[in-house]
Amino acid sequence: MQVIPPALERLIADLTKLPGIGHKSATRLALYILRRPATEAKNLAADLHALHDAIHLCQQCYTFSETNPCMICGNPSRDPRLVCVVEEPGDQIAIEKTGAFRGVYHILHGVIAPIDGIGPEELKVRELYQRATSGTVDEILIATSSTVPGEATASYLADILKGTDVHLSRLACGIPMGMDIKYADEHTLAKAIESRQTVHRLI
Amino acid sequence: MQVIPPALERLIADLTKLPGIGHKSATRLALYILRRPATEAKNLAADLHALHDAIHLCQQCYTFSETNPCMICGNPSRDPRLVCVVEEPGDQIAIEKTGAFRGVYHILHGVIAPIDGIGPEELKVRELYQRATSGTVDEILIATSSTVPGEATASYLADILKGTDVHLSRLACGIPMGMDIKYADEHTLAKAIESRQTVHRLI
Ligand SMILES: [Zn+2]
Ligand SMILES: [Zn+2]
Repeated sequence: MQVIPPALERLIADLTKLPGIGHKSATRLALYILRRPATEAKNLAADLHALHDAIHLCQQCYTFSETNPCMICGNPSRDPRLVCVVEEPGDQIAIEKTGAFRGVYHILHGVIAPIDGIGPEELKVRELYQRATSGTVDEILIATSSTVPGEATASYLADILKGTDVHLSRLACGIPMGMDIKYADEHTLAKAIESRQTVHRLI
Repeated sequence: MQVIPPALERLIADLTKLPGIGHKSATRLALYILRRPATEAKNLAADLHALHDAIHLCQQCYTFSETNPCMICGNPSRDPRLVCVVEEPGDQIAIEKTGAFRGVYHILHGVIAPIDGIGPEELKVRELYQRATSGTVDEILIATSSTVPGEATASYLADILKGTDVHLSRLACGIPMGMDIKYADEHTLAKAIESRQTVHRLI
């Protein structure tokens, strides 16, 4: 017999849509939330409700931000002529934690994945090309993940940026192959930034 | 540099409070929610906001329910004289899935755990004793988990109910020791219900 009240069932269905959360985990989480005071659920609800209204894309680097430009693009102590290209804001967060990068960013919002129907036009690739040809950038450090789609995206970007005046670099070896940037430890990631290599030597 | 916008940081802090979700998982979930359309976050927010207002405890069995009595206590085809005592609504959900139990429930809302300051008075134990002595119950099936606190709670309940006219039983062997009821597979759990044993033979 179905004994889960509809209001709880709806929450379980919502939570099951989140990555890495199956039906059992979602049920456990929903029951936990229900056992806790109502104020905690309502706080979480308020923060979720406000999320998309508060956060937009920085119109220079396309990271998630409450301000435009974002805190990094608007920070005069950062070098705007050195641009680090990452797949997602989560990768940017991981790189910032190392404290090893003093430039600015460009967020692609994904990787090229033909199987999932994601080509360059679904990503912020045109915007990267515009930055690269605007005369405001000296170096582009391609920091996509060392996964198959990450490497394919890096090759694609190297290809379209080859004809520009911009110096291209790639995160150095040091990151284990197949590991997503955002799961690398800070030390390894800092090392890889310091010893970044010019792209023509790699590909 | 801290690059996480405050609205996102607040959501990450909320999610980190949930069981089994560390700071990295919370960040990953929050970024996922942000990448998805705003309507999904707002739906989840609405369901969370409505949760505690919609759901209360059934005043007969103390399960979470939108109605009082709940759908099981109010169902005339269930046997109200056979009461299955479980730790939490999650355990009741697991037992209902087997379809092997035709009685009603009594939810303790926890286990006796002196280390965490949880004694019988923090649980629905007094209410169970009242049901047992009201002349409306023939058998109480104690279905607490086969964990140390679950077994201790079962012993405590057997002790206080021994003097009543109610027949006491315990879920049969078949459930691996140390496993929480709600993670047992349906088959094992159904078997354990069928071959439940009278308590005086066990303790
Ligand atoms: Zn920016
Ligand atoms: Zn009930």
